Amino acid sequence: MKVKRTETGFLLVLDLGDEIIASLKRLAESERIGLASVTGIGAVRDAVLGYIDVDQKKYLKRQFDSESMELVSLMGNLARLDGEPVAHCHVVLGDREMRTFGGHLFEATASVTVELFVRVFEGEVSRQFDPDFGVNRIQL
Amino acid sequence: MKVKRTETGFLLVLDLGDEIIASLKRLAESERIGLASVTGIGAVRDAVLGYIDVDQKKYLKRQFDSESMELVSLMGNLARLDGEPVAHCHVVLGDREMRTFGGHLFEATASVTVELFVRVFEGEVSRQFDPDFGVNRIQL
Amino acid sequence: MKVKRTETGFLLVLDLGDEIIASLKRLAESERIGLASVTGIGAVRDAVLGYIDVDQKKYLKRQFDSESMELVSLMGNLARLDGEPVAHCHVVLGDREMRTFGGHLFEATASVTVELFVRVFEGEVSRQFDPDFGVNRIQL
Repeated sequence: MKVKRTETGFLLVLDLGDEIIASLKRLAESERIGLASVTGIGAVRDAVLGYIDVDQKKYLKRQFDSESMELVSLMGNLARLDGEPVAHCHVVLGDREMRTFGGHLFEATASVTVELFVRVFEGEVSRQFDPDFGVNRIQL
Repeated sequence: MKVKRTETGFLLVLDLGDEIIASLKRLAESERIGLASVTGIGAVRDAVLGYIDVDQKKYLKRQFDSESMELVSLMGNLARLDGEPVAHCHVVLGDREMRTFGGHLFEATASVTVELFVRVFEGEVSRQFDPDFGVNRIQL
Repeated sequence: MKVKRTETGFLLVLDLGDEIIASLKRLAESERIGLASVTGIGAVRDAVLGYIDVDQKKYLKRQFDSESMELVSLMGNLARLDGEPVAHCHVVLGDREMRTFGGHLFEATASVTVELFVRVFEGEVSRQFDPDFGVNRIQL
Protein backbone atom coordinates (compact mmCIF):
# COMPACT_ATOMS: atom_id res chain seq x y z
CA MET A 1 0.00 0.00 0.00
CA LYS A 2 1.06 3.59 -0.58
CA VAL A 3 0.42 6.40 1.85
CA LYS A 4 0.30 10.14 1.33
CA ARG A 5 0.03 12.30 4.43
CA THR A 6 -2.56 15.11 4.22
CA GLU A 7 -3.29 18.04 6.56
CA THR A 8 -5.81 15.95 8.47
CA GLY A 9 -4.86 12.34 7.88
CA PHE A 10 -3.93 10.14 4.98
CA LEU A 11 -4.69 9.17 1.42
CA LEU A 12 -4.19 5.40 1.31
CA VAL A 13 -3.85 3.71 -2.07
CA LEU A 14 -3.82 -0.08 -2.00
CA ASP A 15 -1.77 -2.16 -4.40
CA LEU A 16 -3.14 -5.17 -6.22
CA GLY A 17 -3.62 -7.95 -3.66
CA ASP A 18 -3.67 -5.72 -0.55
CA GLU A 19 -6.50 -6.61 1.83
CA ILE A 20 -8.48 -3.58 3.04
CA ILE A 21 -9.05 -4.30 6.76
CA ALA A 22 -5.47 -5.48 7.28
CA SER A 23 -4.14 -2.39 5.47
CA LEU A 24 -6.21 -0.04 7.63
CA LYS A 25 -5.05 -1.79 10.81
CA ARG A 26 -1.46 -1.53 9.64
CA LEU A 27 -1.84 2.22 9.05
CA ALA A 28 -3.56 2.69 12.42
CA GLU A 29 -0.77 0.75 14.12
CA SER A 30 2.14 2.57 12.48
CA GLU A 31 0.54 6.01 12.82
CA ARG A 32 -0.88 5.34 16.31
CA ILE A 33 -4.40 6.32 15.23
CA GLY A 34 -6.92 6.37 18.10
CA LEU A 35 -9.91 7.62 16.14
CA ALA A 36 -10.50 8.22 12.44
CA SER A 37 -13.23 8.21 9.83
CA VAL A 38 -12.66 6.35 6.58
CA THR A 39 -14.23 6.71 3.13
CA GLY A 40 -13.19 5.19 -0.17
CA ILE A 41 -13.81 3.56 -3.54
CA GLY A 42 -12.08 1.07 -5.82
CA ALA A 43 -12.44 -2.48 -7.12
CA VAL A 44 -12.07 -5.65 -5.06
CA ARG A 45 -12.23 -9.45 -5.12
CA ASP A 46 -12.76 -12.16 -2.48
CA ALA A 47 -14.98 -9.95 -0.37
CA VAL A 48 -16.63 -11.34 2.76
CA LEU A 49 -19.60 -9.29 3.97
CA GLY A 50 -21.64 -9.62 7.13
CA TYR A 51 -25.14 -9.01 8.46
CA ILE A 52 -25.65 -8.86 12.22
CA ASP A 53 -28.44 -11.21 13.25
CA VAL A 54 -29.86 -9.59 16.38
CA ASP A 55 -31.53 -12.78 17.61
CA GLN A 56 -28.56 -15.07 17.05
CA LYS A 57 -26.22 -12.32 18.32
CA LYS A 58 -23.72 -13.03 15.57
CA TYR A 59 -22.79 -12.03 12.05
CA LEU A 60 -24.08 -14.04 9.12
CA LYS A 61 -21.43 -14.04 6.41
CA ARG A 62 -21.54 -14.16 2.64
CA GLN A 63 -18.50 -14.63 0.45
CA PHE A 64 -18.28 -12.96 -2.97
CA ASP A 65 -15.53 -14.87 -4.71
CA SER A 66 -16.55 -14.91 -8.31
CA GLU A 67 -14.77 -11.99 -9.93
CA SER A 68 -13.74 -8.39 -9.45
CA MET A 69 -16.48 -6.12 -8.11
CA GLU A 70 -16.66 -2.35 -7.95
CA LEU A 71 -16.12 -1.02 -4.44
CA VAL A 72 -18.95 1.47 -4.84
CA SER A 73 -18.58 2.86 -1.35
CA LEU A 74 -16.61 2.14 1.79
CA MET A 75 -17.56 4.03 4.91
CA GLY A 76 -16.37 3.43 8.43
CA ASN A 77 -14.05 4.28 11.24
CA LEU A 78 -10.91 3.33 13.12
CA ALA A 79 -10.94 2.97 16.91
CA ARG A 80 -9.31 0.73 19.52
CA LEU A 81 -10.29 -2.60 21.12
CA ASP A 82 -8.17 -3.66 24.10
CA GLY A 83 -5.63 -1.11 22.89
CA GLU A 84 -5.36 -2.66 19.43
CA PRO A 85 -6.56 -0.84 16.29
CA VAL A 86 -9.89 -2.01 14.94
CA ALA A 87 -11.49 -1.01 11.66
CA HIS A 88 -15.31 -0.95 11.43
CA CYS A 89 -16.31 -0.53 7.80
CA HIS A 90 -19.43 -1.08 5.72
CA VAL A 91 -19.30 -1.41 1.95
CA VAL A 92 -21.48 -1.42 -1.14
CA LEU A 93 -20.19 -3.69 -3.93
CA GLY A 94 -21.33 -3.60 -7.56
CA ASP A 95 -21.26 -6.38 -10.16
CA ARG A 96 -21.06 -6.23 -13.98
CA GLU A 97 -24.81 -5.62 -14.25
CA MET A 98 -24.42 -2.70 -11.79
CA ARG A 99 -26.42 -4.64 -9.18
CA THR A 100 -25.34 -3.87 -5.64
CA PHE A 101 -24.69 -5.86 -2.47
CA GLY A 102 -23.74 -4.48 0.91
CA GLY A 103 -22.98 -5.06 4.55
CA HIS A 104 -20.29 -5.16 7.21
CA LEU A 105 -16.84 -5.63 5.69
CA PHE A 106 -14.91 -8.62 7.02
CA GLU A 107 -12.38 -8.63 4.22
CA ALA A 108 -11.83 -7.67 0.59
CA THR A 109 -8.73 -7.57 -1.56
CA ALA A 110 -7.83 -4.88 -4.09
CA SER A 111 -8.41 -6.32 -7.59
CA VAL A 112 -7.43 -3.11 -9.37
CA THR A 113 -7.02 -0.33 -6.83
CA VAL A 114 -8.59 0.99 -3.64
CA GLU A 115 -8.41 4.70 -2.79
CA LEU A 116 -9.16 5.57 0.83
CA PHE A 117 -9.25 8.85 2.72
CA VAL A 118 -8.50 8.47 6.44
CA ARG A 119 -9.46 11.49 8.55
CA VAL A 120 -7.63 11.26 11.88
CA PHE A 121 -9.02 12.83 15.06
CA GLU A 122 -7.19 13.58 18.30
CA GLY A 123 -7.66 11.29 21.26
CA GLU A 124 -8.71 7.67 21.37
CA VAL A 125 -12.07 5.94 21.23
CA SER A 126 -12.43 2.42 22.60
CA ARG A 127 -14.73 -0.43 21.65
CA GLN A 128 -15.88 -3.18 23.98
CA PHE A 129 -17.54 -6.47 23.11
CA ASP A 130 -21.25 -6.39 23.88
CA PRO A 131 -22.44 -9.98 24.45
CA ASP A 132 -26.09 -8.89 24.19
CA PHE A 133 -25.60 -8.11 20.50
CA GLY A 134 -22.42 -9.86 19.47
CA VAL A 135 -20.74 -6.65 18.37
CA ASN A 136 -17.87 -4.43 19.51
CA ARG A 137 -19.62 -1.30 20.69
CA ILE A 138 -18.03 2.18 20.93
CA GLN A 139 -17.68 3.39 24.53
CA LEU A 140 -18.04 7.15 24.97
CA MET B 1 -27.31 9.21 22.18
CA LYS B 2 -23.71 9.83 23.13
CA VAL B 3 -21.62 12.66 21.73
CA LYS B 4 -17.87 13.12 21.52
CA ARG B 5 -16.60 16.48 20.38
CA THR B 6 -13.82 16.35 17.75
CA GLU B 7 -11.59 19.10 16.31
CA THR B 8 -14.08 19.70 13.52
CA GLY B 9 -17.41 18.48 14.78
CA PHE B 10 -18.80 15.45 16.54
CA LEU B 11 -18.79 11.68 16.74
CA LEU B 12 -22.39 10.75 17.47
CA VAL B 13 -23.16 7.24 18.74
CA LEU B 14 -26.84 6.33 18.97
CA ASP B 15 -28.23 4.10 21.69
CA LEU B 16 -30.65 1.29 20.97
CA GLY B 17 -33.99 2.85 20.05
CA ASP B 18 -32.66 6.30 19.10
CA GLU B 19 -34.11 7.57 15.83
CA ILE B 20 -31.49 8.97 13.43
CA ILE B 21 -33.15 12.11 12.00
CA ALA B 22 -34.44 13.20 15.41
CA SER B 23 -31.01 12.65 16.96
CA LEU B 24 -29.29 14.73 14.28
CA LYS B 25 -31.82 17.53 14.72
CA ARG B 26 -31.30 17.43 18.46
CA LEU B 27 -27.53 17.74 18.02
CA ALA B 28 -27.94 20.57 15.49
CA GLU B 29 -30.27 22.36 17.89
CA SER B 30 -28.11 22.06 21.00
CA GLU B 31 -24.86 22.85 19.17
CA ARG B 32 -26.40 25.56 16.97
CA ILE B 33 -25.16 23.91 13.78
CA GLY B 34 -25.85 25.96 10.64
CA LEU B 35 -24.09 23.69 8.14
CA ALA B 36 -22.53 20.24 8.46
CA SER B 37 -21.85 17.12 6.47
CA VAL B 38 -22.79 13.75 7.93
CA THR B 39 -21.53 10.22 7.23
CA GLY B 40 -22.12 7.02 9.14
CA ILE B 41 -22.83 3.31 9.47
CA GLY B 42 -24.66 0.99 11.87
CA ALA B 43 -27.73 -1.23 12.04
CA VAL B 44 -31.33 -0.03 12.08
CA ARG B 45 -34.98 -1.09 12.16
CA ASP B 46 -38.30 0.55 11.18
CA ALA B 47 -36.70 2.52 8.35
CA VAL B 48 -38.84 4.66 6.07
CA LEU B 49 -37.15 5.55 2.78
CA GLY B 50 -38.28 7.91 0.04
CA TYR B 51 -38.00 8.42 -3.71
CA ILE B 52 -38.83 11.82 -5.13
CA ASP B 53 -41.36 11.50 -7.94
CA VAL B 54 -40.59 14.47 -10.19
CA ASP B 55 -43.99 14.37 -11.92
CA GLN B 56 -46.07 14.02 -8.77
CA LYS B 57 -43.79 16.52 -6.98
CA LYS B 58 -43.75 14.40 -3.83
CA TYR B 59 -41.88 11.60 -2.14
CA LEU B 60 -43.05 8.03 -2.55
CA LYS B 61 -42.35 6.16 0.68
CA ARG B 62 -41.49 2.59 1.52
CA GLN B 63 -41.38 1.19 5.02
CA PHE B 64 -38.90 -1.51 5.99
CA ASP B 65 -40.31 -2.90 9.19
CA SER B 66 -39.41 -6.54 9.12
CA GLU B 67 -36.18 -6.86 11.06
CA SER B 68 -32.82 -5.24 11.71
CA MET B 69 -30.95 -4.10 8.59
CA GLU B 70 -27.36 -3.04 8.14
CA LEU B 71 -26.99 0.71 7.73
CA VAL B 72 -24.47 0.26 4.93
CA SER B 73 -24.04 3.96 4.36
CA LEU B 74 -25.57 7.19 5.53
CA MET B 75 -24.56 10.36 3.72
CA GLY B 76 -26.06 13.79 4.04
CA ASN B 77 -26.00 17.22 5.55
CA LEU B 78 -27.44 19.53 8.18
CA ALA B 79 -28.78 22.96 7.24
CA ARG B 80 -31.65 25.25 8.31
CA LEU B 81 -35.26 25.63 7.15
CA ASP B 82 -37.09 28.67 8.54
CA GLY B 83 -34.33 28.85 11.13
CA GLU B 84 -34.92 25.29 12.33
CA PRO B 85 -32.32 22.53 11.86
CA VAL B 86 -33.07 20.12 9.02
CA ALA B 87 -31.23 16.90 8.22
CA HIS B 88 -31.08 15.75 4.60
CA CYS B 89 -29.72 12.20 4.50
CA HIS B 90 -29.69 9.34 2.03
CA VAL B 91 -29.01 5.76 3.11
CA VAL B 92 -28.21 2.33 1.76
CA LEU B 93 -29.67 -0.53 3.82
CA GLY B 94 -28.63 -4.19 3.62
CA ASP B 95 -30.61 -7.30 4.49
CA ARG B 96 -29.48 -10.76 5.62
CA GLU B 97 -28.81 -11.82 2.02
CA MET B 98 -26.63 -8.69 1.62
CA ARG B 99 -29.17 -7.26 -0.84
CA THR B 100 -29.36 -3.48 -0.72
CA PHE B 101 -32.11 -0.86 -0.75
CA GLY B 102 -31.66 2.88 -0.76
CA GLY B 103 -33.18 6.34 -0.87
CA HIS B 104 -34.00 9.46 1.07
CA LEU B 105 -34.08 8.79 4.82
CA PHE B 106 -37.34 9.77 6.52
CA GLU B 107 -36.65 7.79 9.67
CA ALA B 108 -34.77 4.79 11.03
CA THR B 109 -34.13 3.61 14.56
CA ALA B 110 -30.88 2.15 15.88
CA SER B 111 -31.36 -1.62 16.29
CA VAL B 112 -27.80 -2.22 17.47
CA THR B 113 -25.78 0.96 17.08
CA VAL B 114 -25.33 3.87 14.69
CA GLU B 115 -21.97 5.65 14.44
CA LEU B 116 -22.07 9.07 12.77
CA PHE B 117 -19.40 11.65 12.02
CA VAL B 118 -20.74 15.20 11.84
CA ARG B 119 -18.37 17.71 10.23
CA VAL B 120 -19.48 21.22 11.19
CA PHE B 121 -18.79 24.25 8.96
CA GLU B 122 -18.94 27.93 9.89
CA GLY B 123 -21.92 29.97 8.84
CA GLU B 124 -25.42 28.88 8.01
CA VAL B 125 -27.03 27.47 4.91
CA SER B 126 -30.79 27.74 4.44
CA ARG B 127 -33.27 25.56 2.61
CA GLN B 128 -36.51 26.73 1.08
CA PHE B 129 -39.45 24.67 -0.11
CA ASP B 130 -39.55 24.46 -3.90
CA PRO B 131 -43.15 23.77 -4.99
CA ASP B 132 -41.99 22.88 -8.52
CA PHE B 133 -40.29 19.76 -7.19
CA GLY B 134 -41.74 19.18 -3.74
CA VAL B 135 -38.36 19.38 -2.03
CA ASN B 136 -36.54 21.73 0.33
CA ARG B 137 -33.81 23.21 -1.84
CA ILE B 138 -30.53 24.71 -0.58
CA GLN B 139 -30.31 28.48 -1.19
CA LEU B 140 -26.77 29.74 -1.87
CA MET C 1 -23.99 25.32 -10.27
CA LYS C 2 -23.67 27.28 -7.05
CA VAL C 3 -20.61 27.23 -4.86
CA LYS C 4 -20.13 28.10 -1.21
CA ARG C 5 -16.59 28.20 0.11
CA THR C 6 -16.06 26.43 3.46
CA GLU C 7 -13.06 26.36 5.81
CA THR C 8 -11.71 23.27 4.05
CA GLY C 9 -13.21 23.30 0.59
CA PHE C 10 -16.57 23.80 -1.01
CA LEU C 11 -20.25 23.03 -0.83
CA LEU C 12 -21.32 22.56 -4.43
CA VAL C 13 -25.03 22.66 -5.29
CA LEU C 14 -25.93 21.71 -8.84
CA ASP C 15 -28.78 23.31 -10.72
CA LEU C 16 -31.28 21.33 -12.72
CA GLY C 17 -29.52 20.01 -15.82
CA ASP C 18 -25.95 20.35 -14.51
CA GLU C 19 -23.85 17.26 -15.19
CA ILE C 20 -21.89 16.03 -12.13
CA ILE C 21 -18.47 15.08 -13.57
CA ALA C 22 -18.30 18.22 -15.73
CA SER C 23 -19.27 20.38 -12.75
CA LEU C 24 -16.58 18.85 -10.56
CA LYS C 25 -13.96 19.34 -13.27
CA ARG C 26 -15.05 22.96 -13.68
CA LEU C 27 -14.66 23.56 -9.94
CA ALA C 28 -11.26 21.82 -9.88
CA GLU C 29 -10.14 23.93 -12.83
CA SER C 30 -11.28 27.30 -11.50
CA GLU C 31 -10.07 26.62 -7.96
CA ARG C 32 -6.85 24.86 -9.06
CA ILE C 33 -7.63 21.78 -6.97
CA GLY C 34 -4.81 19.20 -6.99
CA LEU C 35 -6.37 16.74 -4.54
CA ALA C 36 -9.79 16.54 -2.92
CA SER C 37 -12.29 14.05 -1.57
CA VAL C 38 -15.92 14.32 -2.64
CA THR C 39 -19.14 13.09 -1.05
CA GLY C 40 -22.73 13.90 -1.91
CA ILE C 41 -26.39 13.09 -2.44
CA GLY C 42 -29.25 14.27 -4.66
CA ALA C 43 -31.41 13.09 -7.55
CA VAL C 44 -30.23 12.51 -11.13
CA ARG C 45 -31.24 11.40 -14.61
CA ASP C 46 -29.38 10.05 -17.66
CA ALA C 47 -26.75 8.33 -15.54
CA VAL C 48 -24.07 6.21 -17.17
CA LEU C 49 -22.36 3.79 -14.78
CA GLY C 50 -19.36 1.55 -15.33
CA TYR C 51 -17.89 -1.75 -14.16
CA ILE C 52 -14.22 -2.42 -14.83
CA ASP C 53 -13.78 -5.78 -16.55
CA VAL C 54 -10.35 -6.91 -15.44
CA ASP C 55 -9.94 -9.42 -18.29
CA GLN C 56 -11.09 -7.10 -21.06
CA LYS C 57 -9.17 -4.21 -19.43
CA LYS C 58 -12.03 -1.82 -20.04
CA TYR C 59 -15.19 -0.48 -18.50
CA LEU C 60 -18.54 -2.04 -19.32
CA LYS C 61 -21.18 0.67 -19.35
CA ARG C 62 -24.86 0.75 -18.49
CA GLN C 63 -27.12 3.69 -19.16
CA PHE C 64 -30.01 4.54 -16.83
CA ASP C 65 -32.18 6.81 -18.90
CA SER C 66 -35.69 6.03 -17.77
CA GLU C 67 -36.53 8.60 -15.14
CA SER C 68 -35.15 10.47 -12.16
CA MET C 69 -33.25 8.32 -9.65
CA GLU C 70 -32.15 9.09 -6.13
CA LEU C 71 -28.42 9.75 -5.90
CA VAL C 72 -28.15 7.66 -2.73
CA SER C 73 -24.42 8.18 -2.39
CA LEU C 74 -21.60 9.71 -4.36
CA MET C 75 -18.07 9.08 -3.12
CA GLY C 76 -14.84 9.88 -4.84
CA ASN C 77 -11.92 12.19 -5.37
CA LEU C 78 -10.38 14.85 -7.55
CA ALA C 79 -6.79 14.52 -8.80
CA ARG C 80 -4.86 15.37 -11.98
CA LEU C 81 -4.15 13.47 -15.21
CA ASP C 82 -1.56 15.08 -17.50
CA GLY C 83 -2.10 18.25 -15.48
CA GLU C 84 -5.85 18.30 -16.14
CA PRO C 85 -8.40 17.81 -13.36
CA VAL C 86 -9.97 14.37 -13.23
CA ALA C 87 -12.88 13.27 -11.06
CA HIS C 88 -13.05 9.63 -9.96
CA CYS C 89 -16.46 8.97 -8.41
CA HIS C 90 -18.57 5.95 -7.59
CA VAL C 91 -22.30 6.21 -7.00
CA VAL C 92 -25.28 4.28 -5.69
CA LEU C 93 -28.56 5.10 -7.45
CA GLY C 94 -32.05 4.24 -6.17
CA ASP C 95 -35.27 3.76 -8.13
CA ARG C 96 -38.92 4.22 -7.12
CA GLU C 97 -39.00 0.77 -5.50
CA MET C 98 -35.89 1.75 -3.47
CA ARG C 99 -33.84 -0.82 -5.42
CA THR C 100 -30.22 0.19 -5.85
CA PHE C 101 -27.66 0.12 -8.66
CA GLY C 102 -24.06 1.19 -8.44
CA GLY C 103 -20.68 1.58 -10.08
CA HIS C 104 -18.16 3.98 -11.55
CA LEU C 105 -19.79 7.29 -12.50
CA PHE C 106 -19.28 8.31 -16.15
CA GLU C 107 -22.01 10.92 -16.12
CA ALA C 108 -25.27 11.89 -14.47
CA THR C 109 -27.35 15.04 -14.64
CA ALA C 110 -29.12 16.73 -11.74
CA SER C 111 -32.87 16.03 -12.08
CA VAL C 112 -33.78 17.90 -8.91
CA THR C 113 -30.62 18.86 -7.03
CA VAL C 114 -27.19 17.48 -6.19
CA GLU C 115 -25.43 18.56 -2.98
CA LEU C 116 -21.71 17.84 -2.86
CA PHE C 117 -19.04 18.47 -0.25
CA VAL C 118 -15.55 18.87 -1.72
CA ARG C 119 -12.73 18.61 0.83
CA VAL C 120 -9.59 20.11 -0.69
CA PHE C 121 -6.09 18.99 0.35
CA GLU C 122 -2.79 20.75 -0.23
CA GLY C 123 -0.52 19.54 -2.99
CA GLU C 124 -1.33 17.61 -6.11
CA VAL C 125 -1.86 13.93 -6.82
CA SER C 126 -1.43 12.61 -10.34
CA ARG C 127 -3.05 9.72 -12.16
CA GLN C 128 -1.47 7.76 -14.99
CA PHE C 129 -3.14 5.38 -17.43
CA ASP C 130 -2.34 1.77 -16.55
CA PRO C 131 -2.71 -0.33 -19.75
CA ASP C 132 -2.65 -3.56 -17.72
CA PHE C 133 -6.02 -2.68 -16.19
CA GLY C 134 -7.48 0.01 -18.42
CA VAL C 135 -7.74 2.52 -15.58
CA ASN C 136 -6.11 5.79 -14.55
CA ARG C 137 -4.15 4.82 -11.45
CA ILE C 138 -3.05 7.22 -8.68
CA GLN C 139 0.74 7.68 -8.54
CA LEU C 140 2.12 8.26 -5.03
